[in-house]
Amino acid sequence: MNSFGNILRLTTFGESHGPGIGGVLDGFPAGIDIDVDFVEAELARRRPGQSALTTARRESDHVEFLSGLWEGKSTGCPIAFLVRNENQHSGDYENLRDVFRPSHADFTYQTKFGLRDHRGGGRTSARETVARVVAGALAKIALDERGISVTAYTEQVGDVRLERDYRRYDFSLIETNAVRCPDPAAAEEMAALITRVKAEGDTVGGVVTCVIQGCPAGLGEPVYDKLSADLGAAMLSINAVKGFEIGEGFAGVAQRGSQQNDLFVPAPADGFPVLEKGGALRPSGITTLTNHSGGIQGGISNGNDIVMRIAFKPVATLLQEQPTVNVQGEAVRVQARGRHDPCVLPRAVPVVEAMAALTILDHYLLAVSRKW
Amino acid sequence: MNSFGNILRLTTFGESHGPGIGGVLDGFPAGIDIDVDFVEAELARRRPGQSALTTARRESDHVEFLSGLWEGKSTGCPIAFLVRNENQHSGDYENLRDVFRPSHADFTYQTKFGLRDHRGGGRTSARETVARVVAGALAKIALDERGISVTAYTEQVGDVRLERDYRRYDFSLIETNAVRCPDPAAAEEMAALITRVKAEGDTVGGVVTCVIQGCPAGLGEPVYDKLSADLGAAMLSINAVKGFEIGEGFAGVAQRGSQQNDLFVPAPADGFPVLEKGGALRPSGITTLTNHSGGIQGGISNGNDIVMRIAFKPVATLLQEQPTVNVQGEAVRVQARGRHDPCVLPRAVPVVEAMAALTILDHYLLAVSRKW
Amino acid sequence: MNSFGNILRLTTFGESHGPGIGGVLDGFPAGIDIDVDFVEAELARRRPGQSALTTARRESDHVEFLSGLWEGKSTGCPIAFLVRNENQHSGDYENLRDVFRPSHADFTYQTKFGLRDHRGGGRTSARETVARVVAGALAKIALDERGISVTAYTEQVGDVRLERDYRRYDFSLIETNAVRCPDPAAAEEMAALITRVKAEGDTVGGVVTCVIQGCPAGLGEPVYDKLSADLGAAMLSINAVKGFEIGEGFAGVAQRGSQQNDLFVPAPADGFPVLEKGGALRPSGITTLTNHSGGIQGGISNGNDIVMRIAFKPVATLLQEQPTVNVQGEAVRVQARGRHDPCVLPRAVPVVEAMAALTILDHYLLAVSRKW
Amino acid sequence: MNSFGNILRLTTFGESHGPGIGGVLDGFPAGIDIDVDFVEAELARRRPGQSALTTARRESDHVEFLSGLWEGKSTGCPIAFLVRNENQHSGDYENLRDVFRPSHADFTYQTKFGLRDHRGGGRTSARETVARVVAGALAKIALDERGISVTAYTEQVGDVRLERDYRRYDFSLIETNAVRCPDPAAAEEMAALITRVKAEGDTVGGVVTCVIQGCPAGLGEPVYDKLSADLGAAMLSINAVKGFEIGEGFAGVAQRGSQQNDLFVPAPADGFPVLEKGGALRPSGITTLTNHSGGIQGGISNGNDIVMRIAFKPVATLLQEQPTVNVQGEAVRVQARGRHDPCVLPRAVPVVEAMAALTILDHYLLAVSRKW
Repeated sequence: MNSFGNILRLTTFGESHGPGIGGVLDGFPAGIDIDVDFVEAELARRRPGQSALTTARRESDHVEFLSGLWEGKSTGCPIAFLVRNENQHSGDYENLRDVFRPSHADFTYQTKFGLRDHRGGGRTSARETVARVVAGALAKIALDERGISVTAYTEQVGDVRLERDYRRYDFSLIETNAVRCPDPAAAEEMAALITRVKAEGDTVGGVVTCVIQGCPAGLGEPVYDKLSADLGAAMLSINAVKGFEIGEGFAGVAQRGSQQNDLFVPAPADGFPVLEKGGALRPSGITTLTNHSGGIQGGISNGNDIVMRIAFKPVATLLQEQPTVNVQGEAVRVQARGRHDPCVLPRAVPVVEAMAALTILDHYLLAVSRKW
Repeated sequence: MNSFGNILRLTTFGESHGPGIGGVLDGFPAGIDIDVDFVEAELARRRPGQSALTTARRESDHVEFLSGLWEGKSTGCPIAFLVRNENQHSGDYENLRDVFRPSHADFTYQTKFGLRDHRGGGRTSARETVARVVAGALAKIALDERGISVTAYTEQVGDVRLERDYRRYDFSLIETNAVRCPDPAAAEEMAALITRVKAEGDTVGGVVTCVIQGCPAGLGEPVYDKLSADLGAAMLSINAVKGFEIGEGFAGVAQRGSQQNDLFVPAPADGFPVLEKGGALRPSGITTLTNHSGGIQGGISNGNDIVMRIAFKPVATLLQEQPTVNVQGEAVRVQARGRHDPCVLPRAVPVVEAMAALTILDHYLLAVSRKW
Repeated sequence: MNSFGNILRLTTFGESHGPGIGGVLDGFPAGIDIDVDFVEAELARRRPGQSALTTARRESDHVEFLSGLWEGKSTGCPIAFLVRNENQHSGDYENLRDVFRPSHADFTYQTKFGLRDHRGGGRTSARETVARVVAGALAKIALDERGISVTAYTEQVGDVRLERDYRRYDFSLIETNAVRCPDPAAAEEMAALITRVKAEGDTVGGVVTCVIQGCPAGLGEPVYDKLSADLGAAMLSINAVKGFEIGEGFAGVAQRGSQQNDLFVPAPADGFPVLEKGGALRPSGITTLTNHSGGIQGGISNGNDIVMRIAFKPVATLLQEQPTVNVQGEAVRVQARGRHDPCVLPRAVPVVEAMAALTILDHYLLAVSRKW
Repeated sequence: MNSFGNILRLTTFGESHGPGIGGVLDGFPAGIDIDVDFVEAELARRRPGQSALTTARRESDHVEFLSGLWEGKSTGCPIAFLVRNENQHSGDYENLRDVFRPSHADFTYQTKFGLRDHRGGGRTSARETVARVVAGALAKIALDERGISVTAYTEQVGDVRLERDYRRYDFSLIETNAVRCPDPAAAEEMAALITRVKAEGDTVGGVVTCVIQGCPAGLGEPVYDKLSADLGAAMLSINAVKGFEIGEGFAGVAQRGSQQNDLFVPAPADGFPVLEKGGALRPSGITTLTNHSGGIQGGISNGNDIVMRIAFKPVATLLQEQPTVNVQGEAVRVQARGRHDPCVLPRAVPVVEAMAALTILDHYLLAVSRKW
């Protein structure tokens, strides 16, 4: 219920106003050199307070590894980690104890469990994604050993959007601006929009694009654990995500099959990488002219770039007064206090990457187990 | 790997040109009256050859229950069922033995498993959805006992599309046309488009909308098995699905939080249904003014209608010659023979409903187990 | 709930007096030559009516494969199979409709599900083990490709017992007698005891020993899915099993550590086989002087023979009148009719082997996935 | 791999010489009052250094709850906890870095993972059971709300053994002696034996009996997740366990069915408790004259006391020099230093109870989910 993955399995725990957020990553391969600085750097990418566009909460978010590492390497045993909470202003939430905030999980949690920690959303807080980023960083380290990379960026904020084709953009520019957008001009527009919305006490949504490169053909299970289905579940488990598409997605439905089919062509010296017995990769000698499929055909990776888009709704927490009801079902008014993100996109980018990396490594291990 | 669900678990098997397609549904509650005629009627909705818009293959698709029913009731033990294949033209596929059809799973399966049944796609055939429809029909029967209904329809074919708000349409009209569209005029346009595309030896995609009504608040697990994530995985596991969204989905990202929030209001005599201990439902006395969330907040149902949209790409099988490569990586040309759907939408509607019903019943049972 | 295994997963279905018994084996490696005659031969070993010592029911138990095989090889997709029931005397059970037979599952099933198929025990019938034997035969075929064998035999019936050390016996004699005991003289005594007990309308229990040879070191997960724990669960899931031990088991507790420790010694040219990346085996150059551990240390195989003992209680079905209660809680008397085994041991031997083979192959595949 | 349970799921982490041992308990019901002092008291029962019979290591073993509790109650979200390690003498193990201790998991871990933390056994250390005891204490608290109790005691140490029938003993005496044996005279003999063995630098094994009282009928899944199979797996996952039996176990196999059957009799005013919809219990009006089955029939609890016996081998760590091999396969000699238990039985008792409590609560929740 609080776990993700098949044979690489992340279990997370923690509430935003409890002792901390943490996780246990089980099934991670043994013998991999773990660069803890890289993990911290990934955490810094999702940290609140990193720019004027995000919440003003400042959390240092230092990760403590509790198990599974020894002399700098993974041991094959569960890697547990803990990020302590700090800088909590629990008092900001006291007025919310008996109130259901609009479009938050307050009502649904209260209904499900009969009680809830009202401070900062408790378990429903996006602070849970701290654990995903730590685990995802570990997965990235392993994937990097096989030449597989995961890159996400902000494609759209409100009505400011990039072109859809990721190949038009230079990924090295993503981290050069606070929005995490590879087009500096668009990034400025997005930043201006977020600033304006914030000033109005309002919020805005957007779209993240995620590209996985170097992934070999043969990952994904045939029917229910299709790679596309598991990637979709991964993304839809992130707070505020309301849509997921792969390849041409919704835009492609209006086209003809003759426009959408990706034609195979010989690539004698190269071609899509293919997973071999024991986990090594070899070139297949085959490629395609186009990638409308987004790197997945019949639920299994084909060796091309895997391309996904993820829709984030505008954050529900407004710095405006809104009507709502309380636990007794009575009409009341509520206004959030404290420090909140007007737009989650900049900080969602590393979370998307983390979930993608975990999904790919899980399926990589599964695929290896199926090579007799 | 070929199973779906948490504690209601469907495992399917079978290839399009083997003995048959079947499944085992485990965890289905005991003591439910099973109307086998209803199951057969659901199967008839996905059957090939049901109209001029679908493939000309004619399969009677009679389901045989092998276990789990006794004196007309479910026993609580696994319900196994088998639909025998018939009317197979395996010869239609002999030319495909060593060829990778464009945008099919031929290449990815061969890569993954080292061999594949080339006849009709083997396990990758959409004929696998026969098993989903049978199991989904059983889930619908159970949900109906709790007043929960699942309804899907074709919202878009190619560039012919309905308005987005499902409340504008009369669900009783869905089954009055071959496209399964609740707007008769649009249905005629869609049918004309499919007919035209078919004449060209081409194919076209579309969008299915699915609405779950009467679902109580409290279904869905907090973080990774969010109801939205599991519904997304369910839909993305269907052949040809390339996108999934819930509530406002991608369209909502351009809006402000103040436009998207669903405000709670008192509904003293009624309101959203809530799951109680033991599985009964009671009115909550609370409702919302809008449903931008699509019935799910924080990953848990809130009692409102659950609204999803699913994108189907155009079918990859064209009745045109296309360039491709063979198993040896050499350039060849391929042309499908036989009988294929120019558009999967009409027959996808019952499959979407089936996956939705299975997901909801699974989470219903999980939610009951969490009521101490 | 009706599934077994981690990434090699068997799901079974069927009741003794329904259409048949079957299963779905998912995760079985692709490309393995399947000798259907061997599968049938294994089924014949558990078949009723094979000798005067077993029930007089005669069932031909022919297996039909429904999926997952193609041109004589496994495809990597789920292998489904069905064994039709025949020769049912459902009338034999009509008197049991409202009665709870002593030490049967009648009361517990009725309590759990609120209804039950009273004919032949429904799902609780040992006929379910047909599915295990079919799946286990497939697992044996795969293990044989890696030089791993699984052998079980009857070690004890009532108070007639062999010596504990399996190395004193010639496994080639096991199938030379109806009891499946490698000591012909003891086998005769056992047969005489079973015949005597049967004449009294009574039943008797016994012990099966199971030895796995050629299993490489490195199988089993560290803590909860210890190989010993999963083998134990496998055996304890067989009808009538009430005890399980590995290595010295209960007898070893009275000894000292200095007597029980298995001392490692160099074996330069040979030694225990070890699992390598990609699933190949290599000699470790290490062996032990003794095998008190039964081939498992710290829950992980060490490459030595894995040795288990499994206790079967006497069958609960007596051909004697017994007092009991009915569904209304009233005192009644019951007498079984029909054809029943006075002792399950002879037919349990292949079931034990099947469960062992499935467990080992599952852990073999898991271990391969963990070799980075 | 490091998780236990179906819908109540414990994941543990930590090594004996790392930062600490901890766990995440997911699926625990919401709204239960958690008595942290009780949890600490349970931990004290397994703590090293509690008497002269156990290892001289002194660890205060204070538990910190990291999540899932709020205002003294469980929230329904994962309960994470951490017990920091202290009083580590890692230097005691430096001589073991390249040596495989006899009958330890050193060789099998090295084989499986390619590296291992040699200090104190790393993940293979029995210190991992700290996490089981914490989680088990929480499960006991929940079960207590339903009147279900779990009691274990030392039945045998070496060749000193109690009579088999637990009803001859007064459970209130168990905690009155260091051995945790309900017969004070036998406890003295056992203590004397342990003291003698310790003086010899040797170790000795034993048997724990565990009795679950008040468990309703209807727990356990029909075939593979039989309650007996899951209890067996739970016990066999504990370090040093080599045998498990339920009811009459191995002793019962020599008897006749007519001796072993438990005859049902009316108990109009009372009888075995039965699980009802929503999780309440009611009397069944039925009981049995005997309990040879050990409270489980057909894999499902029948409402009678559940009775198990668990065999623990003598500890492998001797304070004697032993021959063995090193990582290079060369013959060497090894002698443990430091502080070790000569007999695990006294400290194993709370671990057995913990695993039993977790298994029963898991199946309780599963059974509730199956009441439609």
